[in-house]
Amino acid sequence: MPQLRIALAQVNTTVGDLSGNSDLVVEWTRRAASDGAHVVLFPEMALPGYPVEDLALRGAFTEASRAAVTELATAIADAGHGDVCVVVGYLDADDVGPRNAVAALYRGEVVATQYKHHLPNYGVFDERRYFEPGTTLTVLRTHGVDLGLAICEDLWQEGGPVAALGAFGVDLVLALNASPYERAKSDVRVPLVTRRAAEVKAPVAYANLVGGQDDLVFDGGSFVVDADGVLLARAPQFAEHLLVVDLDLPERRGTGDRSRGEARVEGLAVRRRVLSDVPLDPYPVTYRPELAEPLSDEAEIWSALVMALQDYVRKNNFRSVLLGFSGGIDSAVVAALAADALGSDAVYGVSMPSKYSSAHSRSDAAELARRLGCHFRVEPVENIVAAYVDQLQLEGVAEENIQARVRGMMLMALSNMEGHLVLATGNKTELAVGYSTIYGDAVGGFAPIKDVFKTQVWELARWRNAEAEKRGETPPIPPNSITKPPSAELRPGQLDTDSLPDYALLDELLENYVGGDRGFADLLAAGFDAETVDRVVRMVDRAEYKRRQYPPGPKITFKAFGRDRRLPLTNAWHEVH
Amino acid sequence: MPQLRIALAQVNTTVGDLSGNSDLVVEWTRRAASDGAHVVLFPEMALPGYPVEDLALRGAFTEASRAAVTELATAIADAGHGDVCVVVGYLDADDVGPRNAVAALYRGEVVATQYKHHLPNYGVFDERRYFEPGTTLTVLRTHGVDLGLAICEDLWQEGGPVAALGAFGVDLVLALNASPYERAKSDVRVPLVTRRAAEVKAPVAYANLVGGQDDLVFDGGSFVVDADGVLLARAPQFAEHLLVVDLDLPERRGTGDRSRGEARVEGLAVRRRVLSDVPLDPYPVTYRPELAEPLSDEAEIWSALVMALQDYVRKNNFRSVLLGFSGGIDSAVVAALAADALGSDAVYGVSMPSKYSSAHSRSDAAELARRLGCHFRVEPVENIVAAYVDQLQLEGVAEENIQARVRGMMLMALSNMEGHLVLATGNKTELAVGYSTIYGDAVGGFAPIKDVFKTQVWELARWRNAEAEKRGETPPIPPNSITKPPSAELRPGQLDTDSLPDYALLDELLENYVGGDRGFADLLAAGFDAETVDRVVRMVDRAEYKRRQYPPGPKITFKAFGRDRRLPLTNAWHEVH
Repeated sequence: MPQLRIALAQVNTTVGDLSGNSDLVVEWTRRAASDGAHVVLFPEMALPGYPVEDLALRGAFTEASRAAVTELATAIADAGHGDVCVVVGYLDADDVGPRNAVAALYRGEVVATQYKHHLPNYGVFDERRYFEPGTTLTVLRTHGVDLGLAICEDLWQEGGPVAALGAFGVDLVLALNASPYERAKSDVRVPLVTRRAAEVKAPVAYANLVGGQDDLVFDGGSFVVDADGVLLARAPQFAEHLLVVDLDLPERRGTGDRSRGEARVEGLAVRRRVLSDVPLDPYPVTYRPELAEPLSDEAEIWSALVMALQDYVRKNNFRSVLLGFSGGIDSAVVAALAADALGSDAVYGVSMPSKYSSAHSRSDAAELARRLGCHFRVEPVENIVAAYVDQLQLEGVAEENIQARVRGMMLMALSNMEGHLVLATGNKTELAVGYSTIYGDAVGGFAPIKDVFKTQVWELARWRNAEAEKRGETPPIPPNSITKPPSAELRPGQLDTDSLPDYALLDELLENYVGGDRGFADLLAAGFDAETVDRVVRMVDRAEYKRRQYPPGPKITFKAFGRDRRLPLTNAWHEVH
Repeated sequence: MPQLRIALAQVNTTVGDLSGNSDLVVEWTRRAASDGAHVVLFPEMALPGYPVEDLALRGAFTEASRAAVTELATAIADAGHGDVCVVVGYLDADDVGPRNAVAALYRGEVVATQYKHHLPNYGVFDERRYFEPGTTLTVLRTHGVDLGLAICEDLWQEGGPVAALGAFGVDLVLALNASPYERAKSDVRVPLVTRRAAEVKAPVAYANLVGGQDDLVFDGGSFVVDADGVLLARAPQFAEHLLVVDLDLPERRGTGDRSRGEARVEGLAVRRRVLSDVPLDPYPVTYRPELAEPLSDEAEIWSALVMALQDYVRKNNFRSVLLGFSGGIDSAVVAALAADALGSDAVYGVSMPSKYSSAHSRSDAAELARRLGCHFRVEPVENIVAAYVDQLQLEGVAEENIQARVRGMMLMALSNMEGHLVLATGNKTELAVGYSTIYGDAVGGFAPIKDVFKTQVWELARWRNAEAEKRGETPPIPPNSITKPPSAELRPGQLDTDSLPDYALLDELLENYVGGDRGFADLLAAGFDAETVDRVVRMVDRAEYKRRQYPPGPKITFKAFGRDRRLPLTNAWHEVH
C-alpha cells in the first residue's frame, strides 16, 4: 500500500497578475511542504488567472505566461521546496495555438505538461475561441504512484480522457478546476467526480479556484474521493485553503497495463514520465481528513456575494464603496454585504431624498447606517432636480427619471472627490423587466445583487438578520426596510406593484422564462395567466439594452444576465403574439 | 451549353423578425420572377436574421424558425412563383442541436436542406456556441444544371466542402453569406471566391447580407465569378439589390462523376436531388452583367456608418436622433452622418455651453445646424452645474466630469420628453485611451463613430465636405470644426494635447497596439518612443470598463472594441513594466 500525502491549494488568483500569482504558488507550496505534502495541486490556469479572455490571443501575454512557468519551477526550488511535485495550471501556446495547460514542476524543472482536451463553449465559457484542444495524456510516477492529470471539463466527459487514464492505469487522478459558482453546484460536482473515480478505478483529487473575478465567483470547495467514490476530504467554500490528505493507495490496483511506456488509448496518446519509482517508507498518518460541512443555501449565496464584492474592490485597487441608501431593501442588503466584505469603515452611505421621499425612507436609511456603523450623509436632491425641471420643463417619465439620474450623478461626483467605488443596488427582477433608470439607479462600477431575484433579496435580509441575532450582534438591516411595500418614490404614492405583478408571482414566472428557458405555451401549461405572461415576457424581451448597460455583478445562477444569456439588441422576436 | 438565369437577392433582414423577413423573401422572389430568374439566392440566415445570438438556444424560436421555412415555401407558391427555385438561409434544429442551414424551396415545398460545416468562432463570431456542424452536402439539379450549396465560412476552407463539391461535380456553386463589413474586405472576398471557383471548376455566386444589425454592418456587394475566376457581375454595397445574371454553363464541365446518386467525398456524404433534368430551351440573354464600381475608401466607410445608424434607428422603432453639438469635429461628423441617414428633419442638435465654452464652440455649433438645416436649441449648463458644485463642493476632476454629466442627463431628459434616440459622439481613439466621461459624453443609445480613429474623423469630414462641393451642395461640416485644435473645454484653456500625445502619433500607435496586436518590444522596434508607448499602453489597458459601458456602435475594422476584443475588467497584466 504506497502512501502519498497530497495537498490541494485552493487559492485566489488575479487575472493577468503573472508575478503575483507565481508568488502565491510559491507561498502555498511552502505551506504544503511544511505540512509534509509530497504533491501539491493548484487550480486550472492558476498562473495567468481565469478567465483570461482575449489576453490568450495576445502573443506578448502567452510568451510571458510560458516564461513564468519555468521561472516558477526555479523559484520553488530556490525556496527549498524542489522535492515537492507541484501541479499547476497555466497558459501555454505552440504552433497550433494557445493551450489551457497543466505543468508538473519538480526539482526546479517543468517535468511534464498536458493540454486540456475538452473546451467548454457554452454558458460563461468561450474556450473554443481561445484554445486548441490537447490530444495527449501524461502519467507521472512519483514515489511509485502513477498520477493522471485532468483539467476541469475533461472530467465532465463520459468515456473521455479520464476513461483513457483508467484504461492505461493510474493510481490517482489530479483534477485542476476553475469551476464557477452556481447555487448548489457542489451537489453536482461530487457525484460527477465519484462516477469518474469508479471509471478510472482510482481516487480523484478535485482542486478548485476560489475568489471573485469580474462577474464570476469561484467557490472553492475542493475535495478528494477514493476509488470507491467515498468522499475523503473537503475544503470549505469561499476561502483560500490548503486541504491536506494522506492517501493509502492500493498496490497497482488499476486495471491498465503498467508495463507500457507509451500507448494510444481511446484515441489519445498516453506518455509515461517517471520521477521516482520507489514507494515512500511507511509513515504515520497525521492528517485526519477534513470534511467541511456544506453551507446552507442562504449562507452559500451570501458568501458568494460577499467574496465577489470583496475581490472586485480589492483586485481593482479600490478601498471603499459608496452607495445610495434609499431606505429600501435592495440598498440595505447591498450595504450589509459591503460591510461584511470590507468592514463598516469602508462603506459610505448617502441618503438623497426628494420631495416625493417618505419620512420612513429617510429614517430607514439613517437606521441602516446606525446599525452598520458606516459613514453616512444626507444630500437632498430637490434643488438640483428643480434646476433641470425648470430649465427643460420636464414632466412625466422625464421628471421621474431625472430624480434617479441626479442621484446617480451625485454618487459619481462624490466618488470622483473621495475615490470610492460606486455600487449599483439593482436586483435581478428589476434587470429582467427593465424596471430601472439608465444612468440613474443603474450607475456604478459593480452591482452586487444583479443576479438575485427580489424575493431572494428579502430572504437573504431575513437570514442575515437572524444570523446576527444568533451571534448576539445587531441585525444589520432595519426591519422596516424588509416589511414595507417596495416603492421607487419617483412620484406621489408610487408603488412597484403599480407597474409590476406581485414579486412572488413575477419571480416565479421569471425563473421559468429566463432560468428555465420555457416558452409561452409551456408557461401557460404551467398555470401562469396568459395576460401576465404576455406582459412580463414583452418587458423582458425589450430590456436587453438596459441589461447590457448595467454594471457587472456576480453570477450565482445558471442563467445570469449578460454572461450566460446574450441576446441581440435589435430583436423583433417575441414569444407572445 | 445549358443556360440559367440566377438572381442574387441582397436583402436587409431584421434579427428575430421571422414574419417580416419571410415577407421580404416573397417580395424579392416576386422581383426575381418578374425578371425571369430561374433560381434566386438569399443570404445566410435570411429568415431569422443574423446574428441571432442566444435566440438560437431558445426552443420556441428554433421551432418557429423551422415552421417559418415551410410556410415560406407555401407563401411563394401561393404568390405564383413556385417554379422559381428559392435558396434561402434559415435556422434549423434537430436532435443534435441548432443548425445554421440553407433550404431550397420549389413548387411549395422544401426540396433540399444543408447545414453549415465550418462554424467560425473568432472575432465577432461565436457559432460553436450555437450550432452543430453539418456533415452532408446536397447537389440540386434544376433545368439540367447541378447546383452545389455553401454557407459563408464553408467557402473559406481550402480542401473543405467546396472542394468536395468539385470532386463530386457541380455546374454552379451558390454561396450564402452574412459577412460583416470591414474596411476593404471585398478585396479579400473576390480573390478567395476566385480560388474556390478554380477548385470546384464551376462558377460561384456569392450573395451577401446587407444592412446594420446592432454593432455589425453587412455591406452586400454580392457577386458572381465564372469557372475561370473572371468577375462576371457585382452588386453595389450598402443597398438592397437584386443582381440578375444570365449564365451559359459549359456542358458537364466538372470533373466529378455525375452518374453517382449518392457518395462520400472527402469525408462528406453527398446527396443528389433532381428537380428537373431537362435543360432550358435556348433563350436570348437579356441581362447585361452589372459591375458596380468599388467605392473609394472614405465613401465605403461613410456608407457603412450611415447604414448602421439608419438601421439601428429604424429597426429599434425610433424616428429621430438627439445629440450634443459641441462645436467640435466629432459631433459635427455624427450629425452629418445622421442627416445623411435619416434626413435633416430627424436630427435634433443641442448646444450646451458652460462657463468654459469658447465663443467658437457656440458659433460652430450653430453653424453646423445652419449647414445641416436640422433642429437646434441652446441649453446652457451653468445653473445646473453650479447647483451640484455648490451643494457637494466639487472641484478638480469631479467638477470637470459634472459638466459632461449634466450634458448627458440633459440629453436623456430631452429624449424622455420628445422620444429621440440619443447619439454618443465618442471616437475610437477616445475609447481606446479612456478619454471620456462615463455617464457624460458616453451617454446614448448608439455611438456612430465608435470604431473610427480621430484622424479618420477629420479625413471623413474633409471628404464629406468635398463630396458636397462636387455636387454643388453646402458642405455640412463647419470648416472651423475641422481645423481648430480639439478641446474638451471642461476647464479654462484645456486642450486634448494636455492629456494625450498628438493624434497622428497616438492613432498610429493605437493602430499598431490594438489593431496589429503588437507587443511592447515590437512597438519599440517599429520606432515608437518607449515613454509614449508605456503611457499609451497603460491608458488602453486600464480603460476596459469605460469601453464596456459605452453604447454599441458600428464595427468597421478587424479589431473593433467590444465585439472583437474582449478583455477582463480586473486585469493586472500590462505589457510594459
